[in-house]
Amino acid sequence: MKKYFLKKMAEKPSEDAMKMHPFYRGKIETGIKCPIRDFEDFAIWYTPGVAKPCIDIFDNPDRVYSHTNKGNSVAVITDGSRVLGLGDIGPEASLPVMEGKALLYKYLGGVDAWPIALDTKDPDEFVKTVLLLQPAFGGINLEDIAQPKCFKILEELRVKARIPVWHDDQQGTATVTVAALINAVKVVNKSLENIRVAFIGAGAANVRIAHLSFKAGVDPAKTIMCDIDGTLGTFRDDIERDPWCADKWRLCNITNPRSILGGIPEAMTGADVVIALAKSGPGVILPEWIASMADSPIVFACANPVPEIFPWDAIEAGARIVATGRSDFVNQVNNSLGFPGIFRGTLDVRARTITDEMCIEAAMALAKVAEGKGLSEDYIIPKMDDPDVFPEVATAVGLKAIEQNIAGIKLSRAELIDKAKAVISNSREKVHLLMEKGLIAPFDI
Amino acid sequence: MKKYFLKKMAEKPSEDAMKMHPFYRGKIETGIKCPIRDFEDFAIWYTPGVAKPCIDIFDNPDRVYSHTNKGNSVAVITDGSRVLGLGDIGPEASLPVMEGKALLYKYLGGVDAWPIALDTKDPDEFVKTVLLLQPAFGGINLEDIAQPKCFKILEELRVKARIPVWHDDQQGTATVTVAALINAVKVVNKSLENIRVAFIGAGAANVRIAHLSFKAGVDPAKTIMCDIDGTLGTFRDDIERDPWCADKWRLCNITNPRSILGGIPEAMTGADVVIALAKSGPGVILPEWIASMADSPIVFACANPVPEIFPWDAIEAGARIVATGRSDFVNQVNNSLGFPGIFRGTLDVRARTITDEMCIEAAMALAKVAEGKGLSEDYIIPKMDDPDVFPEVATAVGLKAIEQNIAGIKLSRAELIDKAKAVISNSREKVHLLMEKGLIAPFDI
Repeated sequence: MKKYFLKKMAEKPSEDAMKMHPFYRGKIETGIKCPIRDFEDFAIWYTPGVAKPCIDIFDNPDRVYSHTNKGNSVAVITDGSRVLGLGDIGPEASLPVMEGKALLYKYLGGVDAWPIALDTKDPDEFVKTVLLLQPAFGGINLEDIAQPKCFKILEELRVKARIPVWHDDQQGTATVTVAALINAVKVVNKSLENIRVAFIGAGAANVRIAHLSFKAGVDPAKTIMCDIDGTLGTFRDDIERDPWCADKWRLCNITNPRSILGGIPEAMTGADVVIALAKSGPGVILPEWIASMADSPIVFACANPVPEIFPWDAIEAGARIVATGRSDFVNQVNNSLGFPGIFRGTLDVRARTITDEMCIEAAMALAKVAEGKGLSEDYIIPKMDDPDVFPEVATAVGLKAIEQNIAGIKLSRAELIDKAKAVISNSREKVHLLMEKGLIAPFDI
Repeated sequence: MKKYFLKKMAEKPSEDAMKMHPFYRGKIETGIKCPIRDFEDFAIWYTPGVAKPCIDIFDNPDRVYSHTNKGNSVAVITDGSRVLGLGDIGPEASLPVMEGKALLYKYLGGVDAWPIALDTKDPDEFVKTVLLLQPAFGGINLEDIAQPKCFKILEELRVKARIPVWHDDQQGTATVTVAALINAVKVVNKSLENIRVAFIGAGAANVRIAHLSFKAGVDPAKTIMCDIDGTLGTFRDDIERDPWCADKWRLCNITNPRSILGGIPEAMTGADVVIALAKSGPGVILPEWIASMADSPIVFACANPVPEIFPWDAIEAGARIVATGRSDFVNQVNNSLGFPGIFRGTLDVRARTITDEMCIEAAMALAKVAEGKGLSEDYIIPKMDDPDVFPEVATAVGLKAIEQNIAGIKLSRAELIDKAKAVISNSREKVHLLMEKGLIAPFDI
């Protein structure tokens, strides 16, 4: 019964998507944000008037942020090599996701994202191309790139790029997961410093979650991570030998100090928290393994489209809190809570990069928004439609960048929050007005 | 007096540009073109629903044109190496022009253009990058690239790219100039086949104008072209030896059959038409040279910002028709009359490329729009605010692509014109509505 219900729930958006995508021919377009009072205005926006701002930028390179939209623009860049759970479907087939991401950036964060799908699978060519694309963009959002190349691409770009580079599947997921973790631990009256954590899955997202949770206070020595071949530890010379797995090898060295061998059940025994981003379930995490955890178990079963264990099964097995990646369950660990506000804040203070500390601030701001509304087992993380989420995250991120001395502009807390609110509401009001007046046609098939 | 007046006229848009660019922080943004009825809609536009259109494109690659905005998207790509008359100011400083171009594409043609400014001066790297960018775009508009590399870049991309590639400074200028030429010749009761033409300047634009005018009916043997070193002809072994100048060397072989040596005055003697895109004047073309032309001289003095000879001086010297590149004189040969409609038509029939024949059709459609309103010495080409221009050009271009069997979609004349009108008016109504409701703020400094 439950399964039938779930299947139905997932089918409806898919059916609608197949009708509505062709009806609207995609989701985003070029918007005009300056007035065109009459055709004479083109002498201001184009030749001859436009020459002056060009010369001004040539003389004062920073003014590109005043005279153009660069400072609000983010390229959403993919090679289509690991799209959603669909795998390597290629750059063209990835476009509906990239446009969707751009849509979320704009509606949730007021950020002007544009999809760029590169026709290459080669990480070096990918990096080189992204570097060449920098002049017109204020930031880069890497999206849906297969691992292990995504690690190398992100690391190299973070070193070489002049503008912030973000890989949402790593940093974004980590930020939102840590936010949920902060509150989950609070609900069960434990502390980050003392919890034992089992990380199930050692893909791009979970490796990053581990690192970020350590920066947030989790003790690496109290954690054990598992990949498909079992627990991680210094004994994993297969990982040591793999030049693509430097990040993972670091985890082998700081986690699992007792060198516990085995797999998921061994990692979970006695744990306070299990954070699984392994593979689509159910049946990846068994109820008896949850029963083997410490008191008040916290279960993050975040695989998509189906969690590693269904929430009701986890609860029956003794879980006190269950979070998943799905919007149809409580406690959705949803990436969309993170990136729009994080880039809003990053752009607003013109930060050169996005540091782990900025991610932690974002996670704490997210956690606080939920806390302000009253935490419970069923509410450890806010929802996307909470109007406080994005301005609060933006402000926290912006203030941290200023504190870390990587911001090009210094704004106060009040200025940051006002700016974020204004930009975000402008972008939402626009689409609602266009719908109301029929310039975005109603869907009527 | 006249000069003072002209200077003032040019200063006003520049002053406004320096105030209005920073006020609006540029000109374009990401627009949302699909409805967002509530937050549940994100399950359609993003996960989980979006997976279905992705799979559908993977299975049927052509559906990328149904499920995404690819088919209406054009990348405006530059390296900033020859921006307006400003020269090599670099990719960042070129951005106000690229955004302006995107604005014109959207407002005039309903085309979703996005600025891409590449951080390279190397033509091979440029070509490679453009090829990698293809999946997300329906077409490529090359802009403000220095010659001679622009020739090589365009030629290589037209061979290698799967989507139409357009260099507006070559093909766009040529199309609009030929349109004006068709009508100018008509006004003085001459015929394209019989006129003698002097082409002054052998840069990217004029080389292309010459080639396109020959396709339109001008006899190459009745023309002479001049570059900075004098007239072109088979005697120009400096051009023959230059591997970058293949196009120009072709002109050496088919024009100036009597091998007339000399410079501008020699080229102009006895000519019916002079088409100058040489360098900013005045004083580049002298009145006595116009006096040496055939009866009813037609003078295209199209250098920017100042014509090679001022219109009043040309008229005084005997010119019957004078055209320039400036909006403050009659007969403006304005690129903006061309590219928005040309790409509208190209995209609407999903043409694989933009042929010279499509350019000729565009030129004839433009000429016809002006003719329909009554030609005169002061009116040989329509203005940008003529509502017929862009739909008529789009339709002519689309029909030609279908006839040439390079279109992916076959539409009737009526369907093409209706579609163009609807798309263009939607884009204009949107900006006007947003202005009216204050979501594009009024300019009030």
